[in-house]
Amino acid sequence: MTKAIFPRVLIASTSTVHGRPYLEYASDIIIEHFASASKILFVPFARPGGISHDEYTSIAADYFIGLGKEVRGAHTFENCQDAISWAEGIFVGGGNTFVLVKELHEGGWMTAIPKAVDAGLPYMGTSAGSNVTGMTMCTTNDMPIVYPPSFKTMGLVPFNINPHYLDPDPSSKHMGETRETRIKEFHAFNTTRVVGLREGSCLWLKEGGLRLTGELPMRFFDGQSAPREIAPGEDIHFLMDWAR
Amino acid sequence: MTKAIFPRVLIASTSTVHGRPYLEYASDIIIEHFASASKILFVPFARPGGISHDEYTSIAADYFIGLGKEVRGAHTFENCQDAISWAEGIFVGGGNTFVLVKELHEGGWMTAIPKAVDAGLPYMGTSAGSNVTGMTMCTTNDMPIVYPPSFKTMGLVPFNINPHYLDPDPSSKHMGETRETRIKEFHAFNTTRVVGLREGSCLWLKEGGLRLTGELPMRFFDGQSAPREIAPGEDIHFLMDWAR
Repeated sequence: MTKAIFPRVLIASTSTVHGRPYLEYASDIIIEHFASASKILFVPFARPGGISHDEYTSIAADYFIGLGKEVRGAHTFENCQDAISWAEGIFVGGGNTFVLVKELHEGGWMTAIPKAVDAGLPYMGTSAGSNVTGMTMCTTNDMPIVYPPSFKTMGLVPFNINPHYLDPDPSSKHMGETRETRIKEFHAFNTTRVVGLREGSCLWLKEGGLRLTGELPMRFFDGQSAPREIAPGEDIHFLMDWAR
Repeated sequence: MTKAIFPRVLIASTSTVHGRPYLEYASDIIIEHFASASKILFVPFARPGGISHDEYTSIAADYFIGLGKEVRGAHTFENCQDAISWAEGIFVGGGNTFVLVKELHEGGWMTAIPKAVDAGLPYMGTSAGSNVTGMTMCTTNDMPIVYPPSFKTMGLVPFNINPHYLDPDPSSKHMGETRETRIKEFHAFNTTRVVGLREGSCLWLKEGGLRLTGELPMRFFDGQSAPREIAPGEDIHFLMDWAR
């Protein structure tokens, strides 16, 4: 009798909540998510602020060393297969989604990582690293500073993520689009459902299904009816319906 | 003796300043810019909010009819050559830069328009229509809701535009990047200079050179030294140095 493998995916809106240390807001979840992993592969390709892969890896390593884990940067391996063979858990950090997606496609990671996750490797992403868990990167907030070979992403979940989801500011005189307007525009050209994740929120897929963590509701856009708020604790299994 | 032709390009940060009607803030400039043009070709491809080409064209037509101009939408012509032959002036409206750039490349406009501008056709763009006057669309603020075949744009000016330029909000607890951080990230991967155009500002290229209109300074990023403020009236001819 074979044991079913449940993909384990932790999708965090952000790495850092205002006024608290790096990843600290989600530590309880991260500890449980990576309970079976002592070797964490860190993917630094999103290069926030253009920092180097080594610099970025050392930030993630500082955090995970505190949890008793070993960390290596994805850029220190010969190729994605070697890196994934070594890893017991994978963490894709935030930064620029275009830079990240270009590198993930060019290095073969965009197909290799989902295979490993299907086979049981726990995945965690923050911000851009969360965007790439969706079907496409088309709901990123980032600036298109490099041209990726495709906007398709890993599809670890059958919808798209909009991290750092921001509510409209009724006092603003700025004539740029609100986030909600942008997602509505996305749905003029696409049918993929979108989850707007507010700061401090995570979507957590594990045995038993998908749930929303944190204190804030998520905002859900199905592209047909009006957007709606879904609170932590509400049943969101319908989001994992691939056959929609 | 031949008469030298000066390209005429009006690059507006936005179509609408808070609390004022469509394009009204720039009417004096628009009237002078299109003084010789009674037939305006409107390019509606950026589809703000996903509206149709006809709907969008009627908004622009309402404005230009008030100035005594005839307006036709680019989508009503067989091809870009026919449209440009008809036009005495061209106005590319704002919306989503990715949607606009995809359409401009696929229909041959991305090369046909610059040729016509070089030959004397006055060009005006707002927002996304301003982004495409630069070297690339890599400093747009828009969401990548469709995948264009390239991020290269018209290069009517030898730098990039960031329209709707926003200063950092010191009171914000939002952990997303500021506009300045994003442009700094752009310069980690690119050398093209960037002009951040604030609401109500235009860059206006005509006989006699380039100048900044409006009441606010622009913010200039050369990718090497610290960003700097440049006020209307300051000499900005250095920006037109193609041989940099």
